[in-house]
Amino acid sequence: MIQVPLGFRFAAVSAGIRKDGRIDLALACADAPCVAAGVFTRNLVRAAPIEVAKERLKSGLARAVLVNAGCANACTGEAGMRAAHVSTAAVARALGCPEDHVIPASTGVIGALLPAEKIESHAADLAGALSGDGWEPFSRAILTTDRWPKVAWAEAGPARVLGIAKGAGMIHPDLGPPGATMLAFLFTDALIEKDRLAFVLGRAADASFNSVSVDGDTSTNDCVIALASGWSGVGPGEAELLDAVSSVCDELGRSMVADGEGARHSAEIRVVGLGSHGEAQQVARTVATSLLVKTALFGRDANWGRLLAAAGRAGVAFDPSRARILVGEEEIVRDGVAVGPEAEGRAAEILAGPTSVITLELGDGPGRARYVTCDLGHGYVDVNAGYRS
Amino acid sequence: MIQVPLGFRFAAVSAGIRKDGRIDLALACADAPCVAAGVFTRNLVRAAPIEVAKERLKSGLARAVLVNAGCANACTGEAGMRAAHVSTAAVARALGCPEDHVIPASTGVIGALLPAEKIESHAADLAGALSGDGWEPFSRAILTTDRWPKVAWAEAGPARVLGIAKGAGMIHPDLGPPGATMLAFLFTDALIEKDRLAFVLGRAADASFNSVSVDGDTSTNDCVIALASGWSGVGPGEAELLDAVSSVCDELGRSMVADGEGARHSAEIRVVGLGSHGEAQQVARTVATSLLVKTALFGRDANWGRLLAAAGRAGVAFDPSRARILVGEEEIVRDGVAVGPEAEGRAAEILAGPTSVITLELGDGPGRARYVTCDLGHGYVDVNAGYRS
Repeated sequence: MIQVPLGFRFAAVSAGIRKDGRIDLALACADAPCVAAGVFTRNLVRAAPIEVAKERLKSGLARAVLVNAGCANACTGEAGMRAAHVSTAAVARALGCPEDHVIPASTGVIGALLPAEKIESHAADLAGALSGDGWEPFSRAILTTDRWPKVAWAEAGPARVLGIAKGAGMIHPDLGPPGATMLAFLFTDALIEKDRLAFVLGRAADASFNSVSVDGDTSTNDCVIALASGWSGVGPGEAELLDAVSSVCDELGRSMVADGEGARHSAEIRVVGLGSHGEAQQVARTVATSLLVKTALFGRDANWGRLLAAAGRAGVAFDPSRARILVGEEEIVRDGVAVGPEAEGRAAEILAGPTSVITLELGDGPGRARYVTCDLGHGYVDVNAGYRS
Repeated sequence: MIQVPLGFRFAAVSAGIRKDGRIDLALACADAPCVAAGVFTRNLVRAAPIEVAKERLKSGLARAVLVNAGCANACTGEAGMRAAHVSTAAVARALGCPEDHVIPASTGVIGALLPAEKIESHAADLAGALSGDGWEPFSRAILTTDRWPKVAWAEAGPARVLGIAKGAGMIHPDLGPPGATMLAFLFTDALIEKDRLAFVLGRAADASFNSVSVDGDTSTNDCVIALASGWSGVGPGEAELLDAVSSVCDELGRSMVADGEGARHSAEIRVVGLGSHGEAQQVARTVATSLLVKTALFGRDANWGRLLAAAGRAGVAFDPSRARILVGEEEIVRDGVAVGPEAEGRAAEILAGPTSVITLELGDGPGRARYVTCDLGHGYVDVNAGYRS
């Protein structure tokens, strides 16, 4: 049962930005200014709302996040920047707060200019609809090709952490302190300073959003924004808060991959035994993003040759003749060669389920990493070959 | 009209390695020892025939190449090495040449052991069938998921260069001097020394096979082998020979991409205006391998937002607000923003054809590169989701 962190209210309306008339404009607002932090796409091509959000979060203070679906407002030049300013200014007026305290985020088609006038004309309605229960319509209004909303929740002592995210395609976030469109918003009533919030957010995002991939493409609009109201009156220990935020981010990241465009199966790729965590991460990422691995998963095929070939091109040294591969608990490769068709048959049964863990043991070093990926099949092609999906 | 370089004969038989009974064992043989060179996959996981071929080509001398489809003989341990030795030894006996002068190459399923006894029992037939016209069945016997054979031919003065290749999937070669399965064999009657042949081959492979991608996956079995008989009696100038070899490799590489699994369209991605050729290559590779770009090509969608977003994550600095993008001669992005729907409509018409050139102008530096890619659609999924396709 989700408990909303103290001090936050939410709302969503249909502003007519999406062509299909679904709700498409969402607002989360704190009752007083919050400590805030964000991590943003490292893509060189960044949407106007990303530029505005980065600039505004430098103060470490924010009151609200304003999110629209249906238009990424990316590659829209000066007009796009103006639209981001005009729309957040309208919402700030409705909330009675400084414009700089409203953080914008957008998702949708790249190259289309945000229709700021639609947001202006709905700003008062949106502010008037804010409620503690509004997180549910908020979570639906920000979706694009997603099949389901992504909401996760955790406790850090008496403080609460609520996370709401969207994302199903263009998912291979590369988020840095200074990346699908994936959007994630974290709300907590923990009492925390700006720098600690930024640190916790960065660490949690690295271990979660930066370790998931649907299609290997990073977006112009990826961002994770965290607001801390402090209204629980409690400052949890850093480890405790990091655990809670990490747990929320991990759940949201896994939900995005499970909802990967057209996906039926999600697999956690675990790589162990390399020289360093960084090397393990590089191999895990290469395996997780291999098209041949992802289409094999779609075919429910325990195709270890493709797993090993992908590991082999990651640019990390290991001895293939000592490699061991397991699907779940089922060992399918030992000392670099196949265990046999029976083992692969049992592994294929595991792959026919909704989730799996695939482990590559590539040595006896301490380096280990995991990356969550999904199968790639006809659904992905259908979603992405349509004109301006 | 293809003219076979002097001194070479070819043959192919069905040895029963493929399950469907098609011809699957091919031999190219020179009438005397040749100067020889090879470039091989840089994948850490390398098939047994790759290890054997690398070792044997150190001498710079070879007489024959023995190629089978239907089995990659990769990840097969010591047994795989024995199978490569036994099969080439049988063919060497039939040809009356040293075993070390027979260069093996294999393509097919990873993890299946080469049935050397089938090659042994067909060695005499194969040697007996050698003929100058045999390049045609040779070119068909080495195919796997290919829809057509790949043969190219050029002249370097009075010398001839014949190239025969296979490859449609697991195509993103990363070939180095010491990468889908792509196999390519070059035969020339030019008079040339070992080191010069190796140099010409390396340069030509870099500009061709290392600049094409079907699915971003490199293979355990990729190799290009060149044999020079010298029988034209002429040593062409290095530039002339490089031109001829490059032209043959370029044609073979483009044919592989056009034949990319399920592909209907191939696009040359040209990146110009960056600081160096290396930077341009990095951007071109990132755009060419983007799943969102490849599915947009499948949808005949001039989706420049995906082109620009992929360029932006390549790790190369440029100013997106100055970016210009053309499909053919049609400018669709100017100064980082859309030219308009009419231009995109005309670009979409170009994408409906079999080939296109997509140019990204990202500055006014001297760095330029090209990368050939193909669309990715339902056909790719069908080919690769089947159990052990």
